[in-house]
Amino acid sequence: MTAATHSQPFVPEIRPREVPPDFVTALQDRFGKQLSTAMAVREQHGRDESSFSVPPPAAVVFAQSTQDVADVVALAARWQVPVIPFGVGSSLEGHLLAVQGGISIDLGRMNRVLAIQPDDLTVTVQPGVTRKQLNEELRSTGLFFPIDPGADATLGGMCATRASGTNAVRYGTMRENVLALEVVTASGEVVRTGTRAPKSSAGYDLTRLFVGSEGTLGVITEATLRIYPLPEAVSAAICSFPGIEEAVRTTIEIIQLGVPIARVELIDAQTVRMVNAHSKLTLREEPMLLMEFHGSPAGVEEQARTVQEIAAGHGGQSFEWATTPEERTRLWTARHNAYFAAIQSRPGCRAIATDTCVPISRLADCLLESVREADASGLPYFLVGHVGDGNFHFGYLIDPDDARERERAESLNRALVARALAMEGTCSGEHGVGLHKMAFLPQEAGEGAVALMRTIKRALDPHNIMNPGKIFSL
Amino acid sequence: MTAATHSQPFVPEIRPREVPPDFVTALQDRFGKQLSTAMAVREQHGRDESSFSVPPPAAVVFAQSTQDVADVVALAARWQVPVIPFGVGSSLEGHLLAVQGGISIDLGRMNRVLAIQPDDLTVTVQPGVTRKQLNEELRSTGLFFPIDPGADATLGGMCATRASGTNAVRYGTMRENVLALEVVTASGEVVRTGTRAPKSSAGYDLTRLFVGSEGTLGVITEATLRIYPLPEAVSAAICSFPGIEEAVRTTIEIIQLGVPIARVELIDAQTVRMVNAHSKLTLREEPMLLMEFHGSPAGVEEQARTVQEIAAGHGGQSFEWATTPEERTRLWTARHNAYFAAIQSRPGCRAIATDTCVPISRLADCLLESVREADASGLPYFLVGHVGDGNFHFGYLIDPDDARERERAESLNRALVARALAMEGTCSGEHGVGLHKMAFLPQEAGEGAVALMRTIKRALDPHNIMNPGKIFSL
Repeated sequence: MTAATHSQPFVPEIRPREVPPDFVTALQDRFGKQLSTAMAVREQHGRDESSFSVPPPAAVVFAQSTQDVADVVALAARWQVPVIPFGVGSSLEGHLLAVQGGISIDLGRMNRVLAIQPDDLTVTVQPGVTRKQLNEELRSTGLFFPIDPGADATLGGMCATRASGTNAVRYGTMRENVLALEVVTASGEVVRTGTRAPKSSAGYDLTRLFVGSEGTLGVITEATLRIYPLPEAVSAAICSFPGIEEAVRTTIEIIQLGVPIARVELIDAQTVRMVNAHSKLTLREEPMLLMEFHGSPAGVEEQARTVQEIAAGHGGQSFEWATTPEERTRLWTARHNAYFAAIQSRPGCRAIATDTCVPISRLADCLLESVREADASGLPYFLVGHVGDGNFHFGYLIDPDDARERERAESLNRALVARALAMEGTCSGEHGVGLHKMAFLPQEAGEGAVALMRTIKRALDPHNIMNPGKIFSL
Repeated sequence: MTAATHSQPFVPEIRPREVPPDFVTALQDRFGKQLSTAMAVREQHGRDESSFSVPPPAAVVFAQSTQDVADVVALAARWQVPVIPFGVGSSLEGHLLAVQGGISIDLGRMNRVLAIQPDDLTVTVQPGVTRKQLNEELRSTGLFFPIDPGADATLGGMCATRASGTNAVRYGTMRENVLALEVVTASGEVVRTGTRAPKSSAGYDLTRLFVGSEGTLGVITEATLRIYPLPEAVSAAICSFPGIEEAVRTTIEIIQLGVPIARVELIDAQTVRMVNAHSKLTLREEPMLLMEFHGSPAGVEEQARTVQEIAAGHGGQSFEWATTPEERTRLWTARHNAYFAAIQSRPGCRAIATDTCVPISRLADCLLESVREADASGLPYFLVGHVGDGNFHFGYLIDPDDARERERAESLNRALVARALAMEGTCSGEHGVGLHKMAFLPQEAGEGAVALMRTIKRALDPHNIMNPGKIFSL
């Protein structure tokens, strides 16, 4: 095991492989100015939003086409050098870190929306297209792509980590919304994993094998996604509660009744305070649910009425509506900025983020016990949650130079994961395993399942060059 | 290639491996009366609804527990004997046929609903539970399992073929509705592939790798599924159209508008005739759409009004409502009996079924051209479709002893698949590849993707004992 045990904080095992000079020369010959070995560029590509420090990759190739990616990987395969795909660097679990050295492939220049098929509710994009860019380009069609992890991540990255976010309670995650991928495999071959048919029983589900594989099986060079008609009516609401428990119980009831709510987000009181300070808002500094309803005007009204009744039954107060697009944008921007608001609340800090997800009936138990533990620890934290999915995030705000704070945060995280697993939940609802959760995966999936994953990895990437050292040790 | 070329009808390559007498003795010692080598039992387990004739498996083990399955597979692994899981035998593409010999594992006795978690909208079942049985056991909870492929298939079989059917347009397929599986792998190990969390980014998506793997990677011994609150209101309607084209155009518009219709099924005029004769009904013998709406009373009314307007715009007539559960049951029973109604319309015939699925915008082109070809062929056929998904089935009714008829049907199927693939569709929307579509898979997925599938198969089943000779040749 390279990863954490219960008695010590996680430190990734760093063992960069030699990058042969001939390989770099071959890259230079092929890629010229698309290759950079400048330290600033390497450093930018050697970190993400996680709190680890690892030496950067040896070089960065700025790919402009699938052929570029295929050629990088073919060269890397020949010299057995690790290859790490890079989008915008918004991943949270150390996915991008060059723990075994190698090079980074920056896919940011592959940022074209290749085809919009409005009549089929599908779109095909290059991996460097971000979700905001996609929705911008879809704007005139009356369609949208709903998956929204907060950060303006690339769609390639979102495929790779099986991302989801605020809209998943209604529209599903990347698992449900990717129809097909083009991938460059570990040998440098270009393979398509599906068609544009809405459903298929034709062979193994390669699409979903690559979705969530975190760059360890191949590089995603194209994705065909489902898109949706913009709902006729949208309305958003804020509801404050006397305590977190009441907010959570409201959520559970909404889900159990089958209300097709589009978003239901929990923010705890101190995170509201941080958000108010950062976004200059005057939200009531109490636990709140931020909700959004999509549908026909009558349908939205019906949903909202049902939810308002449920909330009232749990002491929900001051149901406030945001019906104009501007108000809604302000609200969701504030929600999405919670992470940065929290970081700014303690200058110099880093956040250790948790990502457990449990069956909805266990959400209150899991969340409330974890709040008690976090409060008892004395560490500052933020708490937000895609609670409709049973998924929530603590962000423990630590001084990165204080080993005891880090250990306290990691220990809270371990306790939370253990609690979630005992409740038949998962250590990762949406961020992925990366480096940070490697120790949890065998606990969650069992050694047998991890052994199957390793077998697949070894078969598809025999030289272990595709983002090695992530998800599980080999 | 063991499978069809374009110039001759498909004949599975039959090469039974030797079943060592020691292996049978070991099975007898372990399983006693749970083992049968009676010819009638073997024959029953050596066929499905496909039109192939292949010698039966050498023996049938009636498994009663996961441990039984693990023990059968461990013995089979030791002697390298093929193992074919069996539910109720309703698969259509030759999945159950012992083309390489071996034994059948009958999972029908593993038919317990292990846990219903109404608060989480999940259920855990053994693989031999059928979909009707499950809904019977869920009845008192106000919840239901929506996936309905027509036949009263087992849930294990439905997982294995990635089944869907009439409700998929709203609720998705088995791909979307399986949360986790327990599987016995090719070495006889028992592995869980997921948790009960609604979403997860923890490692490779083993669940979806096994869903649709047709028994070639392991035997499914347990499945955790999503269930749904019974809709507050349900109403069904029939609408007749002057021609198929108008019915299809109505469907396309319904989908493109994002109407959350629960079912929208096409039946062509001659199939309505067959259904009337078989089910003693008096439906108008014109192309029709059979529809169902789920939601709140107001929501259902709104959907129905929208759909009625769309249908009227395409010449839809005589919108008839079935609002009582009895009327609806009669209607859907008639739809589900279309296959048997058709078979009975030509005594002694077998149906060669097609299963293409295309992006919704191509549905009219794909379907209408295929109708013209089928009409020109002179073969009797039925035509039904889960048209909301772009999926439809011709069933060419052939005299199984007439090689020319078989070739005519296979040739129509080949032309239809080629058309669907050119339209970015799939050869199999929901039936799976089995034996019958092996030749189509490389055309659809590309040799590179099939090579990845083979690599995975070889890695997870190195002795090729799990339902060998299906999906692709090795």
